[in-house]
Amino acid sequence: MVVHEREPFNAEPPRTALAGLAETPVDAFYSRNHGPVPDIDPAVWRLRVDGLVEKALELSSDDLRARFDEVEVVATLQCAGNRRAGLIEVRDVPGETAWGPGATATARWSGVRLADVLTEAGAAPTAGHVAFAAPDVSRLADPPQTYGGSIPIVKALRPEVLLAWSMNGRALPRVHGGPLRVVVPGWIGARSVKWLTRITVRAQPSGNYFQATAYRMLPPEADPSKAGPGEGISLGPLALNCDILSPDDGARLCPGPAKITGYALAGDDRTVARVDVSLDAGGSWIQAEVAEAAGPWAWQHWSATLDLPVGDVQIIARAWDCTGAAMPESPAHLWNPKGYANNSWARVRVRCA
Amino acid sequence: MVVHEREPFNAEPPRTALAGLAETPVDAFYSRNHGPVPDIDPAVWRLRVDGLVEKALELSSDDLRARFDEVEVVATLQCAGNRRAGLIEVRDVPGETAWGPGATATARWSGVRLADVLTEAGAAPTAGHVAFAAPDVSRLADPPQTYGGSIPIVKALRPEVLLAWSMNGRALPRVHGGPLRVVVPGWIGARSVKWLTRITVRAQPSGNYFQATAYRMLPPEADPSKAGPGEGISLGPLALNCDILSPDDGARLCPGPAKITGYALAGDDRTVARVDVSLDAGGSWIQAEVAEAAGPWAWQHWSATLDLPVGDVQIIARAWDCTGAAMPESPAHLWNPKGYANNSWARVRVRCA
Repeated sequence: MVVHEREPFNAEPPRTALAGLAETPVDAFYSRNHGPVPDIDPAVWRLRVDGLVEKALELSSDDLRARFDEVEVVATLQCAGNRRAGLIEVRDVPGETAWGPGATATARWSGVRLADVLTEAGAAPTAGHVAFAAPDVSRLADPPQTYGGSIPIVKALRPEVLLAWSMNGRALPRVHGGPLRVVVPGWIGARSVKWLTRITVRAQPSGNYFQATAYRMLPPEADPSKAGPGEGISLGPLALNCDILSPDDGARLCPGPAKITGYALAGDDRTVARVDVSLDAGGSWIQAEVAEAAGPWAWQHWSATLDLPVGDVQIIARAWDCTGAAMPESPAHLWNPKGYANNSWARVRVRCA
Repeated sequence: MVVHEREPFNAEPPRTALAGLAETPVDAFYSRNHGPVPDIDPAVWRLRVDGLVEKALELSSDDLRARFDEVEVVATLQCAGNRRAGLIEVRDVPGETAWGPGATATARWSGVRLADVLTEAGAAPTAGHVAFAAPDVSRLADPPQTYGGSIPIVKALRPEVLLAWSMNGRALPRVHGGPLRVVVPGWIGARSVKWLTRITVRAQPSGNYFQATAYRMLPPEADPSKAGPGEGISLGPLALNCDILSPDDGARLCPGPAKITGYALAGDDRTVARVDVSLDAGGSWIQAEVAEAAGPWAWQHWSATLDLPVGDVQIIARAWDCTGAAMPESPAHLWNPKGYANNSWARVRVRCA
């Protein structure tokens, strides 16, 4: 793993560790944290459900397993800061981690549907949002506070949103949110709150710093140190994205036919319609073969065999979604002060000799 | 209106006729037809509902009004070929109409929910798609056939999808589909089938030429005359788009502060998050003020006051949606053989002297 920070622990795998695998091994799954990883004793851990509900709940691990159906969803998570390094090449993004392509990964999650828990609690008709709280204290927040966030009730009631205790068939590791985390497929990873201890049904989005102030796309001229709650575009559903996973950026290859592979993810509840690869800066494109997804919330791997010329070669990939929308060309036009949502064309540079 | 063709009748208004109006006047609403406009006697007209239903229906105009609740939706329709002229500047699109920015417009539609009619008929659990048929014969189809199309049952059952007999408070004009048309908000106009006579619930999408072969985005190298059914990206939900509606392209203005206005439409079920305007080819942007929409399926008008320099000036606009996705820069990279879904940055050129 490429460790960006030890405390809070932030690390991503090299891109090639993600290549070709429908499920990312747990030890290659990116870690994005805002504070120290809490150490929770599952025996004393409880989940509170409160707010705009008929009946507040307090659930132990055993309660969750006994009172609700266990379901499994294969879902790709992606950090809103994934590919920030491409934006930093345009202009610095002070104070934010220079994530490469690896702040995205796919796992088979299992647990219970958030919808089932909300139904048991009886969400009120005035419910607009569902807020998640966790005990990890972040000094990055202003003022320092525990991590939290929310999603609209419409998304919270969808069957793909889980409270998960298992990842790829094994107990959810502590660093990935054990004993229990939220998994919000199709949305930025920030909403898949780890170490979940409390669910609050509200009329309005969470007032937590990471919902109200961070994870917002500010216009280029804004000063993020002065941006108050509610400014900018609150990020939730993921935008269409893709990346090249093999060969690695900077690889040395032989000229001639080479297999280029990567992933594409439509984000939100869209589907990937096409992936193109180019060796001539987008002048012409080869359509990649796109493999079937492991489910509607999982990335799709793609591959294309291209004839690499001698010399320094830039390989470009872009995806299209089911609306016929394509990823934009250049990170220059997507740069934003916190460096979120870089979904410009994917690029790796290789040397062929 | 700019008349592209007399038969079939295809016409759009100048962009300035759309500026600033929440609802487009009927006589400025674009007309996109694939065959002669049918002349239907409402007294003998019937709507058949059949296919995978428990009970086939045959409904008169009076039946529709008596047996279902009347509802109203303000919705923007947009032709998949809107802004094709921008793609033709890149490379010709033979055989297709050079639509400018005006193949989009907004009306207040009223009629009944398609969902209510489908519920009355009892759509079977195997229902996957809902096909619409009309009597207008198109010689553009191969072989010549009546116009048709379909939408997935999931969309068909949503409350915004109407069978409409009224437009902006008046009886639906014949040229806009009277006596009854489908209105599929958030989707390409081609699915809002006019002169509706038959609704068929099916397992698969419609086999009609305009669903199976046309309205598909082919890769640049494809030869559309050889593309068979099922090739390319079947267009349905609209992609994010915007345009400048005032000043007009080619206008002569005075240097100094000028109000630039336009519309933005997120498409599908997304929302517009921001609109930017630039005078320096995207080097810097001014955020436009975005007015509230008349409803979740209607465009949003925006305006910005910019200080125009002396000389030839290019004004650029782009929109962002709620995922933080932006419109792509250049039509060059979006060109496709049938010229669909141009959602590159909007541009007008003005002379300031």
